[in-house]
Amino acid sequence: MGELDVTALQRALRRFAEARDWEQFHAPKNLAAALSVEAAELLEIFQWLDEAQSRAVGPGHPLHERVAEEIADVQIYLLRLADKVGVDLDAAVRCKLARNEEKYPPEKARGNATKYDRL
Amino acid sequence: MGELDVTALQRALRRFAEARDWEQFHAPKNLAAALSVEAAELLEIFQWLDEAQSRAVGPGHPLHERVAEEIADVQIYLLRLADKVGVDLDAAVRCKLARNEEKYPPEKARGNATKYDRL
Amino acid sequence: MGELDVTALQRALRRFAEARDWEQFHAPKNLAAALSVEAAELLEIFQWLDEAQSRAVGPGHPLHERVAEEIADVQIYLLRLADKVGVDLDAAVRCKLARNEEKYPPEKARGNATKYDRL
Amino acid sequence: MGELDVTALQRALRRFAEARDWEQFHAPKNLAAALSVEAAELLEIFQWLDEAQSRAVGPGHPLHERVAEEIADVQIYLLRLADKVGVDLDAAVRCKLARNEEKYPPEKARGNATKYDRL
Repeated sequence: MGELDVTALQRALRRFAEARDWEQFHAPKNLAAALSVEAAELLEIFQWLDEAQSRAVGPGHPLHERVAEEIADVQIYLLRLADKVGVDLDAAVRCKLARNEEKYPPEKARGNATKYDRL
Repeated sequence: MGELDVTALQRALRRFAEARDWEQFHAPKNLAAALSVEAAELLEIFQWLDEAQSRAVGPGHPLHERVAEEIADVQIYLLRLADKVGVDLDAAVRCKLARNEEKYPPEKARGNATKYDRL
Repeated sequence: MGELDVTALQRALRRFAEARDWEQFHAPKNLAAALSVEAAELLEIFQWLDEAQSRAVGPGHPLHERVAEEIADVQIYLLRLADKVGVDLDAAVRCKLARNEEKYPPEKARGNATKYDRL
Repeated sequence: MGELDVTALQRALRRFAEARDWEQFHAPKNLAAALSVEAAELLEIFQWLDEAQSRAVGPGHPLHERVAEEIADVQIYLLRLADKVGVDLDAAVRCKLARNEEKYPPEKARGNATKYDRL
């Protein structure tokens, strides 16, 4: 839905960190750890639900707001990390999508019984 | 840098999954697990580096391309998951940024010695 | 099944690290990151399986050996980390089990509909 | 330090789950997710510390108790998961240690500049 203004958001995050003197903590190593921790907090919401129950977590569901907040946390650390290591998010995603198209040709992937490395 | 065309990317990911008959695997629970696994692959690159070494991983660094690819993987699963649970990425991020501004007033956060929950 | 000789294993791991001059990398922070990465590699095996399929992964199953190896990796880093921070694994586990008994009285936990924080 | 009585602990965990009717939630897939979440909670304690600060987290340190509790949580889910998939923890660890001895000969590992896959 919509667009993510990466430039503006990364600038806002930079200012946020600078205003609190937190740039010293934002080494890529630490941001990667924090990103991983936030991804786990997102997973925690779903850990005891079965797949069908997890599919029901749309707008209006009691867990929806919490899911939205954890998704935001992951996105925020990802924007910050990409900024610190100089990765162009849009270019990196498009490059990976092209690679995935090659790696998983539809006709082969369809009948594939090994359930790994699914995008 | 630039913008992320969330609508277009989510549509592309939806088609990618449909063409391979992978929608059946993309329950939010599974996507949250996959997101967490990708975040760990990103962390793995930095795990034995010290903070200073991690700060050197910019464009041209031998690890830069690998970092870019793992960042893309995290972004891709995040786009997919947000699509499946009906979360507007941009709105969720802006909402969380506003909350963080309130939660961590610069003057208090500056002198803060406890190093937790840093954005 | 059986016992884990924590003292002997931690001594073996200490020698292993010393012989390779790896103690310099084994800061608790790094070991916690590595542990998290190994836990994700274990999760990766199950990420696209449904619960019933995951229940079938016992001895003889094609995924069993891989699961055993990832479980071992997690246990190894946990032994190493506990050694480095001076945590007595057995005491810590028994203390937590006692706390869980209090926190989740069977009669209340049984009828509990919220599926969170399940041990 | 000491020993971990795997048999007794796994039996206690089994009874704990049965008494609360939680066996239904303890599919290996869910336990692997929960293990990963607990490992992230452990990592969270260290995420903004530098390596030297993390090396100071021994007995008596203000963070020591919290670290001990999160280590216990990881160990508990690992015991539970190993029980459910029929993995002998001690045998799996010894097997992996032997493999690591072969994979990383001390003389080669010593001079190794690439900081990856360090045990």
